[in-house]
Amino acid sequence: VNSQTVKEAAVEPGGEVVDVLLEGRMYGRYTQELGVYAKEEAARLRESGQRRSVSRTLDLLEYDKGRCAKCRICTVRCQKFLISRVGEDWIFLILLGLLMALVSWVMDFCIAICLQAQKWMYGGLDSNVFLQYLAWVTYPVVLITFSAGFTQILAPQAVGSGIPEMKTILRGVVLKEYLTFKTFVAKVIGLTCALGSGMPLGKEGPFVHIASLCAALLSKFMSLFGGIYENESRNIEMLAAACAVGVGCCFAAPIGGVLFSIEVTSTFFAVRNYWRGFFAATFSAFIFRVLAVWNRDEETITALFKTSFRLDFPFDLQELPAFAVIGIANGFGGALFVYLNRLIVQFMRKQKAINRFLMKKRLLYPALVTLLISTLTFPPGFGQFMAGKLTQKESLVTLLDNRTWAKQGIAEEFDYIGHSEAWKHPQVNVFVTLVLFIVMKFWMSALATTIPVPCGAFMPVFVIGAAFGRLVGESMAAWFPDGIHTDGTIYPIVPGGYAVVGAAALSGAVTHTVSTAVIVFELTGQISHILPVMIAVILANAVAQSLQPSLYDSIIRIKKLPYLPELGWGHHEKYNIRVEDIMVRDVRYITLNCSYRDLHNVLLTGHLKTLALVESTESMILLGSIERAQLQALLSLQLGRPRRLAYIRERAVEDKKRLSVVSNDSSENSSHRASQEVRFQVRGHSGQRCKKCFQPFKAHYFQSHRKKCLQNVTAEFCMSSKITEWEEKQLDEQVNFNNCKIDPAPFQLVERTSLHKTHTIFSLLGLDHAFVTSIGRLIGVVSLKELRKAIEGSVTVKGAKVRPPLASFRDSGTSSSENEATELHKLWDRHKSMPLPREHTPSESDEKSQ
Amino acid sequence: VNSQTVKEAAVEPGGEVVDVLLEGRMYGRYTQELGVYAKEEAARLRESGQRRSVSRTLDLLEYDKGRCAKCRICTVRCQKFLISRVGEDWIFLILLGLLMALVSWVMDFCIAICLQAQKWMYGGLDSNVFLQYLAWVTYPVVLITFSAGFTQILAPQAVGSGIPEMKTILRGVVLKEYLTFKTFVAKVIGLTCALGSGMPLGKEGPFVHIASLCAALLSKFMSLFGGIYENESRNIEMLAAACAVGVGCCFAAPIGGVLFSIEVTSTFFAVRNYWRGFFAATFSAFIFRVLAVWNRDEETITALFKTSFRLDFPFDLQELPAFAVIGIANGFGGALFVYLNRLIVQFMRKQKAINRFLMKKRLLYPALVTLLISTLTFPPGFGQFMAGKLTQKESLVTLLDNRTWAKQGIAEEFDYIGHSEAWKHPQVNVFVTLVLFIVMKFWMSALATTIPVPCGAFMPVFVIGAAFGRLVGESMAAWFPDGIHTDGTIYPIVPGGYAVVGAAALSGAVTHTVSTAVIVFELTGQISHILPVMIAVILANAVAQSLQPSLYDSIIRIKKLPYLPELGWGHHEKYNIRVEDIMVRDVRYITLNCSYRDLHNVLLTGHLKTLALVESTESMILLGSIERAQLQALLSLQLGRPRRLAYIRERAVEDKKRLSVVSNDSSENSSHRASQEVRFQVRGHSGQRCKKCFQPFKAHYFQSHRKKCLQNVTAEFCMSSKITEWEEKQLDEQVNFNNCKIDPAPFQLVERTSLHKTHTIFSLLGLDHAFVTSIGRLIGVVSLKELRKAIEGSVTVKGAKVRPPLASFRDSGTSSSENEATELHKLWDRHKSMPLPREHTPSESDEKSQ
Repeated sequence: VNSQTVKEAAVEPGGEVVDVLLEGRMYGRYTQELGVYAKEEAARLRESGQRRSVSRTLDLLEYDKGRCAKCRICTVRCQKFLISRVGEDWIFLILLGLLMALVSWVMDFCIAICLQAQKWMYGGLDSNVFLQYLAWVTYPVVLITFSAGFTQILAPQAVGSGIPEMKTILRGVVLKEYLTFKTFVAKVIGLTCALGSGMPLGKEGPFVHIASLCAALLSKFMSLFGGIYENESRNIEMLAAACAVGVGCCFAAPIGGVLFSIEVTSTFFAVRNYWRGFFAATFSAFIFRVLAVWNRDEETITALFKTSFRLDFPFDLQELPAFAVIGIANGFGGALFVYLNRLIVQFMRKQKAINRFLMKKRLLYPALVTLLISTLTFPPGFGQFMAGKLTQKESLVTLLDNRTWAKQGIAEEFDYIGHSEAWKHPQVNVFVTLVLFIVMKFWMSALATTIPVPCGAFMPVFVIGAAFGRLVGESMAAWFPDGIHTDGTIYPIVPGGYAVVGAAALSGAVTHTVSTAVIVFELTGQISHILPVMIAVILANAVAQSLQPSLYDSIIRIKKLPYLPELGWGHHEKYNIRVEDIMVRDVRYITLNCSYRDLHNVLLTGHLKTLALVESTESMILLGSIERAQLQALLSLQLGRPRRLAYIRERAVEDKKRLSVVSNDSSENSSHRASQEVRFQVRGHSGQRCKKCFQPFKAHYFQSHRKKCLQNVTAEFCMSSKITEWEEKQLDEQVNFNNCKIDPAPFQLVERTSLHKTHTIFSLLGLDHAFVTSIGRLIGVVSLKELRKAIEGSVTVKGAKVRPPLASFRDSGTSSSENEATELHKLWDRHKSMPLPREHTPSESDEKSQ
Repeated sequence: VNSQTVKEAAVEPGGEVVDVLLEGRMYGRYTQELGVYAKEEAARLRESGQRRSVSRTLDLLEYDKGRCAKCRICTVRCQKFLISRVGEDWIFLILLGLLMALVSWVMDFCIAICLQAQKWMYGGLDSNVFLQYLAWVTYPVVLITFSAGFTQILAPQAVGSGIPEMKTILRGVVLKEYLTFKTFVAKVIGLTCALGSGMPLGKEGPFVHIASLCAALLSKFMSLFGGIYENESRNIEMLAAACAVGVGCCFAAPIGGVLFSIEVTSTFFAVRNYWRGFFAATFSAFIFRVLAVWNRDEETITALFKTSFRLDFPFDLQELPAFAVIGIANGFGGALFVYLNRLIVQFMRKQKAINRFLMKKRLLYPALVTLLISTLTFPPGFGQFMAGKLTQKESLVTLLDNRTWAKQGIAEEFDYIGHSEAWKHPQVNVFVTLVLFIVMKFWMSALATTIPVPCGAFMPVFVIGAAFGRLVGESMAAWFPDGIHTDGTIYPIVPGGYAVVGAAALSGAVTHTVSTAVIVFELTGQISHILPVMIAVILANAVAQSLQPSLYDSIIRIKKLPYLPELGWGHHEKYNIRVEDIMVRDVRYITLNCSYRDLHNVLLTGHLKTLALVESTESMILLGSIERAQLQALLSLQLGRPRRLAYIRERAVEDKKRLSVVSNDSSENSSHRASQEVRFQVRGHSGQRCKKCFQPFKAHYFQSHRKKCLQNVTAEFCMSSKITEWEEKQLDEQVNFNNCKIDPAPFQLVERTSLHKTHTIFSLLGLDHAFVTSIGRLIGVVSLKELRKAIEGSVTVKGAKVRPPLASFRDSGTSSSENEATELHKLWDRHKSMPLPREHTPSESDEKSQ
């Protein structure tokens, strides 16, 4: 009799099939659980054995009278000390900084080689323009296509900047697939290829993600040594530091990196994390720049895009209106960029014909976009009017140059500057070149950042901003050739200063951050323009924030990540929405005197991670909340292996005579026999062959088919029916909450709490849901979903689990029991995703019986 | 019969006197309450009248057919619009920035004049050294003594830097007397005098306080226009921005100001406050520097202490160890400074003989300290060996000079530098001068900051750090006269760069902040030394934080402010303390079915601001918490004026015939008569003459002295006894909680929550206390006090009320009822502090009856 026939038998009663299958699936969990238990126990045994052996080594050594015994004791002690020290934060941070600096430097090195190769190819073919064009275009297309394909195959999570995902993760949402080794590899290689292609893409955003990946992997690696790396809230803190490291080692800007990461990823920031970020980012930036010195690229440690504006009179007071204009214009520009970026993505999604075609040929879209952009920048073609032959880095260096381009009469001085030549066109004015550069790069960057490769938008936007600033600066210089200052000394206008202001303002507007100002100072190594930069950045932010969300928030909305949106400024209508308007009134709850069956039903229907515990259905007094995993543990304890075994053993001893025993050795005593039977039964639990005998049925099914059942009865089947009966009896018992961790103070709101207050509480505490009570009576529940809907309309989100970061502070139990609960929880999740995932794993007992 | 005799009569029963007096005091509250009610009502009437008149003006204008009616309508509308706009945040921030920039600039101007005056006096008397000495010494002594005296008389709260207090206030503790106009005046004038004296005192700390004062006063002022300025959580946010403004306009360092204020004052920082700080600080710094340009002090906007180090090669990689040494040494130095400062304060407190003497002559200590310090810096005396004639600002400018002092052979170049001359002594090496300067200034600064005047320690420490950096730099320059760099070009060492590093490191070590690095860049206008500065600051912080608390935390401990100390790093024993070890088990609670008398008793004995509401004494199930003020409102509602009046009116009508009516006009109807009687009775409440008749007595007193009472009975006395009886009856009624705001979810902990977790929750939510429950049953309470005791030993704190900042998010009621409750609360506090504070305030009815 195999399981197939049992299923067929079950089909006979007709309508009850689904019911039975559901039940079967549910009990399958308990069956599977035994395998997990066995594995865990084996692991525990192995571990304790190892530990014992280590301590035994030490003991042995202590008593060893040999020659170098003392040395060896010392070595082992040092090892122990090192292992304990490795658990310290600062070692982790140093390692992280070192690793990221190396990654950043190696990546920069590879990108530089890629770009040089393109130039070399282009330069070598200068005899034939068509061949030149082919080389100019093919190279980036191949690189981008490879990058897109590689990322797609290895880890699609690596696509994009990664800052939106980090923001979501730091909010407390678990997006585990974004922090794997595969993603790391895909992101690093994909990013190198993408940037090596010369497309207007950035390095900053992906670096935040790469640093976080590094931190997560390093955490996992270091948890092999010490225990504290298993703490989840610590991991979140380390991720926050890693974000700072990412920006810090990308731009050699430790302070700006820390601030930028705070602004971009956090809502409420714990100041005690501050030093971690500073420490790691500084170390990382230091190593990054030292590597450049060691590689003889630089003489000493300096800024990445060092400028040399005059110090004595950086700008005149009367130039400030021009800076303010740059700020306001860049504010509008930033909002436009975000809007354009979103428009392109939405357009590609809506056009179903295009979409379907592109979906089939996933690599066609990147290739087409790259082809378009590189065709337009082809230097002998249109590229000559927009300095197309310059790489992004070269453009920035020339834009920040401290000489004036538009000044009349000093053409000979202008000649000797290496790259600045590209901006000069024999027929066309430098202003036209700049305008064309700005306009073309603007839409190109917005388009290029939608390519599914690892890429950021910060650097392209930064360059566009610098170009706009330069444009204004050159105009000012042309307008006031001798400067504005009237008191004797002539201080000519420095257009490079305007470029710095413009770069900070536009990148600040796109990302909605003020810290781009600091990044600019650290990038250029000069802080003389601090007030113009600050004024422009603040104005740009004011304009951009009132028009559009930040680029990262925009991507979060497009990707529908489970993030709590910020409440906009001045949306006063939000103050009038109350919790009672948005709460879910149909709450799943359990009562103090419920049965295990009720528990089971609630677990099957609810979706929240914790369940409300009320006094009774009548009073609805909220007593606390219990985690779903805890309840599952309760349920499996009631129906679990030890009790099941005890029951079977009891039954076996009792019904010994009636069963046909397949024991060969009759000389053994009865207790041994009983235990052997039990083992046989247990094998039935996990093995596949005798699964039928444990296939559970609902009681009423048995009752209605009692006769047929009794006719075809075998000893095993009878046993299983008895077990099912036992299960039913167990399910009807009242739940004993004594060993259950109850959170006595789940977060409660009253029905008149405003949306604004709810938002603050949710974001401050990182809540997933809160119960709504009225004088102690549970009347509803509000989860992140409802809150988000209320704030921005109805958006549905799937595939992400939300975990309140402070949850670990609420429970009072030990960590070991927590792990157990988590284990059960995983089991449950796995079970839900795969119906009846039963593999044939021959256990020890199985092999023995064969 | 006056009140004296009643008191004497009350004394007769002996032991019950205290009881009666206590009762009397308690009922005195209700008596006094009537006055408050009257005032409030009058204010309301006045306000509504005003409002009506404004709208009437508008209405009238609309119907006015006159020539310029439209103009006037327009004007009124504009006025309305302006008034509504004034409520916007950015206007507030601009005003704050403007105001603070003006204050800062005017103060700097006055200080400069003061210092010039001293120099002028000293210079004019160069014929006689003794007169010179007298002038040099008397001037600061007079100024400091005046500053100390003025502050002492006007507002003793203005003493010191104010950062510890701001830290406490931003933590959520109400220290109202620190944010008054008196304190503002005392702080501004006191600080100007103190800094004008030339003592080694700083401006930064007090400026944080002054900016906060400004913000608080501005809030009050602007609440005259709009409504949103009454929101308390908004005020806290504005205070946080104000702290940034304080640093920003003091050093013209907006970014560093924001970061410094975050690091110094916050534990958890809301990133949405970030832009406020940046906006206000930038505006303030801008105006501050523009004022300098307008005053022709500067040609354009530049840094405060502008340096001009070479940009191409700021430092060699091999110099980094020297920078690290500066960092570590300054870490030790910073810890020593904090220790020394605390030691001096504690020494002064312990030496009772000195202490008593100084207490009597409060101004003697400042004068003596000033005398000592100014004697030692007297330029022709010891001051010649420590550049004593330089002011703090001059010292800093010379220390940051980009030329090398110790270089051999270029003495002639050294001559022409104005102030640097002071460092050169014909007999003594410049190294000796520097060492003497560092050592002397070190203890002088530590001593000077203990003087009870408004002063900070940041700037003196900054200068000492710069001097130490300079010392190391000069040593390096002497050691490597041609620089370390070996590849062809000679790059001599820049000792000024070392001074920058040293300044940032020492000030960072003393304040435990990293943002001093940013402040240094903004102060000097050069960011070329970013990596050395960051490395030194981080090392200095690491060393100092492991040795001593920050200067501000040290002062918080000395002043015993109610602040939650940070948990140190690596104090793992804290993880083993549980809430059950520190909680107070004797909790004051009220039950659902308690009487008003119970309420009254609980209110008299408890000290927490909210009281637990449990189901019953047996079950102890925690249902929620009620604010003390709410309960007082309940109690006063039960015994309050309307019910009392109703009762009296009823009695009066009933007992009309038995009373001797002092009405002259017998033609009026009875209802008028009754109302007059009532007025008479009410007058008795607030007036002093007939107070006796309302002097309440406990019922049992009346019972035991019934006879005597009946013998001397007057109508009034009888009335009062009846009212007392009525009160007693009212007190025995069961409390009706219907109109009471109950917080259904007070923060709860379980008894096994660790100290570490409790600390995090308290600081994240700004809690004052949390109830400890065990499966819903109230078993204890933990307040900030217990937590602090557990963390740092037993420290008692008095005189400050703690308010949880999130409290406003919890309650669902309207603000009007809250204000009422607060009013009652004030009344209660006032009442407690002054026993029976009955003044004779002749009311209208009083005057009429005379």
